[in-house]
Amino acid sequence: MQQSKKIGKQTYNIEQGVSIIGYGAVVGKKEGNGPLGKKFDFVIDDGYFGEKTWEKAETKMQKEAILYAVSKARKSLSDIDIILSGDLLNQCIGSNYAVRDLGIPFLGLYGACSTMAESMVIGSMLIDGNYANNIVCGTSSHFCSSERQFRSPLEYGGQRPFSAQLTATASGMVVLAKSDDKPYITQVTIGKVIDKGVKDILNMGAAMAPGAVDTMLTHFEDTDTSPSSYDLIITGDLGKTGYQIVMDLMGKSGYKLSNYKDCGMMLYDLIKQDAHSGASGCGCSASVMCGHIIPEIKSQKINRVLFIGTGALMSPTSVQQGESIPTIAHAVVISNER
Amino acid sequence: MQQSKKIGKQTYNIEQGVSIIGYGAVVGKKEGNGPLGKKFDFVIDDGYFGEKTWEKAETKMQKEAILYAVSKARKSLSDIDIILSGDLLNQCIGSNYAVRDLGIPFLGLYGACSTMAESMVIGSMLIDGNYANNIVCGTSSHFCSSERQFRSPLEYGGQRPFSAQLTATASGMVVLAKSDDKPYITQVTIGKVIDKGVKDILNMGAAMAPGAVDTMLTHFEDTDTSPSSYDLIITGDLGKTGYQIVMDLMGKSGYKLSNYKDCGMMLYDLIKQDAHSGASGCGCSASVMCGHIIPEIKSQKINRVLFIGTGALMSPTSVQQGESIPTIAHAVVISNER
Repeated sequence: MQQSKKIGKQTYNIEQGVSIIGYGAVVGKKEGNGPLGKKFDFVIDDGYFGEKTWEKAETKMQKEAILYAVSKARKSLSDIDIILSGDLLNQCIGSNYAVRDLGIPFLGLYGACSTMAESMVIGSMLIDGNYANNIVCGTSSHFCSSERQFRSPLEYGGQRPFSAQLTATASGMVVLAKSDDKPYITQVTIGKVIDKGVKDILNMGAAMAPGAVDTMLTHFEDTDTSPSSYDLIITGDLGKTGYQIVMDLMGKSGYKLSNYKDCGMMLYDLIKQDAHSGASGCGCSASVMCGHIIPEIKSQKINRVLFIGTGALMSPTSVQQGESIPTIAHAVVISNER
Repeated sequence: MQQSKKIGKQTYNIEQGVSIIGYGAVVGKKEGNGPLGKKFDFVIDDGYFGEKTWEKAETKMQKEAILYAVSKARKSLSDIDIILSGDLLNQCIGSNYAVRDLGIPFLGLYGACSTMAESMVIGSMLIDGNYANNIVCGTSSHFCSSERQFRSPLEYGGQRPFSAQLTATASGMVVLAKSDDKPYITQVTIGKVIDKGVKDILNMGAAMAPGAVDTMLTHFEDTDTSPSSYDLIITGDLGKTGYQIVMDLMGKSGYKLSNYKDCGMMLYDLIKQDAHSGASGCGCSASVMCGHIIPEIKSQKINRVLFIGTGALMSPTSVQQGESIPTIAHAVVISNER
C-alpha cells in the first residue's frame, strides 16, 4: 500500500506534477470593457450570444471556453479523458448542455462559485492518481440567467446595496495534463462547509469570507507555509466587502496579508462600471484565473499562487425558509516549481 | 510515471481494492411499506421527519444516512477524509446543509439520479489514488421537495401517465475505505452525456435508457466482459418503461439480458402501491443499493454486480425552453473478488 498523499487535515500533495497546459476564457460585454477586458479569448456582443435564451448563451460560452482551452493545449477533443464542470443554474444545465455534443466522459460538480477550484482539485487528483492524461475543468455564470433564477426579473431594476456583487457573465476552462510544461498544480486543500449565520443574500462577501479564511488558515497549517510563501494569494469572488473581512479576520489570526487579491475586485472597474462590491459567480474566478492569473504565472511574472475558490451554497428556497448561507472554499497551489 | 489505470475508452481499474465498509439507508413511509421496507436502517414517519419543511427533512435524512453508514463502518466522523454528495434540489441544498455541521471536507456533485454511482466512481478513484482512507459517498431525494421543484404543487393532484415514476423519499450513503473487507469496487466507467431527443418529463425512463445502454455497452467493450460476467446488472431508476427499452436496445446489440434488474422497479410494489412505472430520484438507487444490494453482496448471495446509476440532466427551465433531456449513466463494479 502506497503512502497517503494527504498532509495535515485537508491538504493533498499532487506529486507527479500536473500541468495546466491550456486555458480559455469567454466573457460578456461588461467584463470585456473591464480592466482585464483585453486578456480574454473572446468577448460576446450581447447577453444572448446568438441564442434564444440567456441559459443557452451560458451553455454556448462554456462550450466555446472548452474549445479555446483544448485548442491552446494543442489537443483535440478526442484527447480529453474527462470533463469536470458545474455551474450556478438549477440542475447545472449550463454545463450539462455544454458537454452534450462533445462525446467526452463527464462528471458534474456543484460547488457554486467555488467550482473552478473544486474542478481543479478533483482533476489534479485524478491525473496524479494515473486515472487520466487530460482533463478539462471549469465553469460558467451569466448575469441575466443568475438574476432570473436567484433574484428578481431584470426588468424590475431593484436597487442594490453597496455590499452587493454582480454575477459575472463569463466562462473559464483549463486543460490539466501529465506534462513537464509549467505551471503545475502542486497542492490542493479541500474545504469544509462553514456557516457563520449570515442571511443577507445581498452580502455574499460577508457570508463567504469566513469560509475563505478557514481554508486559508488550514492550508498554511497543513503545509507549514505562510502568506509570504506565495507571490499572490487570490480568492474567487468575495468582492470589496468580503476582501476587507478576510483582511480583518486574517489580521486577528496574526497574519498581515500584503500579497492578497480577490478576483471579484479585478473583473470590473468598481467605480466607473458601477459594480458596487465587485463581481461574483462561478465565471468570475474562472475567467480571471484563465484570462489573467494563469498567463501571468506562465510568463513568470509571478511564480507561486494560492488560489482559493469561494462558494455560497444556499438556494432561493433555503433562503425563503429562513436558513443562513453555508459556504465553502477550496484551495489550489499553482506554481512554476514542482 | 506510472501506468494509466484507464482501460478502453471510459473505464478505470481500481487496483488496490477499495472496500465498501459501511452503508446506511433512510427512507420514507411509502418506501418503508414497499417490498424492501424491512431492509432499511430507518423509516421516517411522515414527509417532515420532525422538520418544518420537506427540504429540511431531506437534509436530515441525508445526515442520518451518513451517521448510519459511518457507525456501521465502525468509524467516527473524524475518521472521514472527504464527503462526496449531491442531490436533485436546486443548488443541491439537501447535501450542502446536511454536511454543514459535520466539519468534514466536502466536494459537491451534480449528477441528478446518477449521483450515487458518480460519488462511488470519484470516491474509489481518490482512495485508490492514495488521497484518502475513508470517504463517504451518497445522495438523497424526497418526493415532496422534488414535486414542488420539478412539477406541480402537491395539492394540484394531477394525473400521471403510466410511464411516470415517483421520486423516492430516500437517502443512501456508503463509506469507502482502503481495507481487506469485502465487497470491493474493482472497476468504474464514467458516462458521456447522451440525448436522444426525448422531451417528455413524464417519461424519464425513455430518456435515460439510451444513456444506460451506452455506458453498459462501453463497459462490456472496455473490460472485455459480457452480461454473464456478472451475477446481477442493475440500473438506477429507469422504471418499467425504461427497463423494457434497455432490454430491447441491448437485444438489438446482440445481448439477451437474463440477469438485469432496475432499482426503480424494486422499491415499490408497482401495482399495490400504485407506483406506475416505478421509483426514481437520487434516493432510489442510493437506498436500494445501500439497503438491499450491497448487503446481498456482503452476505455472498450474489458476488459480482454491475451497478449503472442513471441520471436525467434537464431542469424545469431547460424543459420550458423546449430542450430535450440530456442523460448520463456511470457504472461501478462491486465484487467479492479483487
